[in-house]
Amino acid sequence: MTRQLSTTDRTTVRRGSAKARTERSDLHAILDAGLICHLGLLVDDSPRVLPTGYGRSGDTLYVHGSTGARSLREAAGGVEVCVTVTHLDGIVYARSLFHHSVNYRSAMIHGRARDVVDADEKWRALRVITDQLAPGSWEHARQPNKRELAATAVLAVDLAEAAVKIRTGGPSDDVEDVEADKAWAGVLPLRTQWGAPEPSADLPPKFEVPPHVTEREYPA
Amino acid sequence: MTRQLSTTDRTTVRRGSAKARTERSDLHAILDAGLICHLGLLVDDSPRVLPTGYGRSGDTLYVHGSTGARSLREAAGGVEVCVTVTHLDGIVYARSLFHHSVNYRSAMIHGRARDVVDADEKWRALRVITDQLAPGSWEHARQPNKRELAATAVLAVDLAEAAVKIRTGGPSDDVEDVEADKAWAGVLPLRTQWGAPEPSADLPPKFEVPPHVTEREYPA
Repeated sequence: MTRQLSTTDRTTVRRGSAKARTERSDLHAILDAGLICHLGLLVDDSPRVLPTGYGRSGDTLYVHGSTGARSLREAAGGVEVCVTVTHLDGIVYARSLFHHSVNYRSAMIHGRARDVVDADEKWRALRVITDQLAPGSWEHARQPNKRELAATAVLAVDLAEAAVKIRTGGPSDDVEDVEADKAWAGVLPLRTQWGAPEPSADLPPKFEVPPHVTEREYPA
Repeated sequence: MTRQLSTTDRTTVRRGSAKARTERSDLHAILDAGLICHLGLLVDDSPRVLPTGYGRSGDTLYVHGSTGARSLREAAGGVEVCVTVTHLDGIVYARSLFHHSVNYRSAMIHGRARDVVDADEKWRALRVITDQLAPGSWEHARQPNKRELAATAVLAVDLAEAAVKIRTGGPSDDVEDVEADKAWAGVLPLRTQWGAPEPSADLPPKFEVPPHVTEREYPA
């Protein structure tokens, strides 16, 4: 199997093409470092963009939600979706406002959502979604029972068609602005990290915070 | 003018309705605390979800981009768009996987994009977009010239129809799981902050990092 992402009209990056990546490993890395995606689909002929958790298994992306959620029901019908995961890494201050930019990593996946009905696949999908959002919880917390499984919808999207873009580094200023030497230029990085765990108010005080929470790293 | 958000079929939050907010001030606060939005629209009948910067002026949201960008040209034609801004505040660990959740603030705005052609409005829009992404840069850096303005497209979306959701606090576990006392429960907060400024390699060493960068707070 090729490790290159397929190139289609809508995944060919036309603007700032120096930022486009075509390695499947870049796509996987961006997805694996994320916590939520933005799922785009049509509901009543209008675009809708939903923030939601997800997980990846090989070249399949899974999202889940309540079977009662209208948007998920729509998506389960095999409609076209677009799933975008974005990491904002910093603000790029240039000498001109025009060249101000951001450093980021983004993956935009196009595909049709498939309703996951096979019990084994659904179980595995819930596991990878859990491992993405709360690694260690699959082993630590109570696993889903039949009623909970029935109330949960899982959708799959093949990672076949995706546009991956990465911007790193400092500003790309015009020569005249660099020579004018009138403004500061550089990057203000954005850092995300976990805070101190906050035990639930109804937890017995004896309950120590388990290692999969205390030792969690960002990104995983 | 009412301070309540309009309620339409698609902005009536049906799932987890306890999280829905209808105060316009909540919408404004979520937008003002963000750096990027996810803009959803149809391109060639397929949904597309684009991460991009934005700014707010009163009850108008502005986004900008290159006039050469296909997606922006499509959106400028008055098509329906959905703009979502999401802040992920923490992971909610419950005793059951089913009740695992996330704390977040999200705003989902529905509307038609309007191409901003009036020169004064375009200038003001670029200013609020700059103030959102890089406050202080409007005064510090070189402002756009005619050529740069012509190469920049600005779109406006009225903040008339929006769904705002906020989840805070600990897990909502089933009584049996709390009584079983077998798993830790609580919240692992997510914190975002600015790192140390990284001056551009071609910046003269004498150039001190200006206060609008060194003193920038997160969120603004």
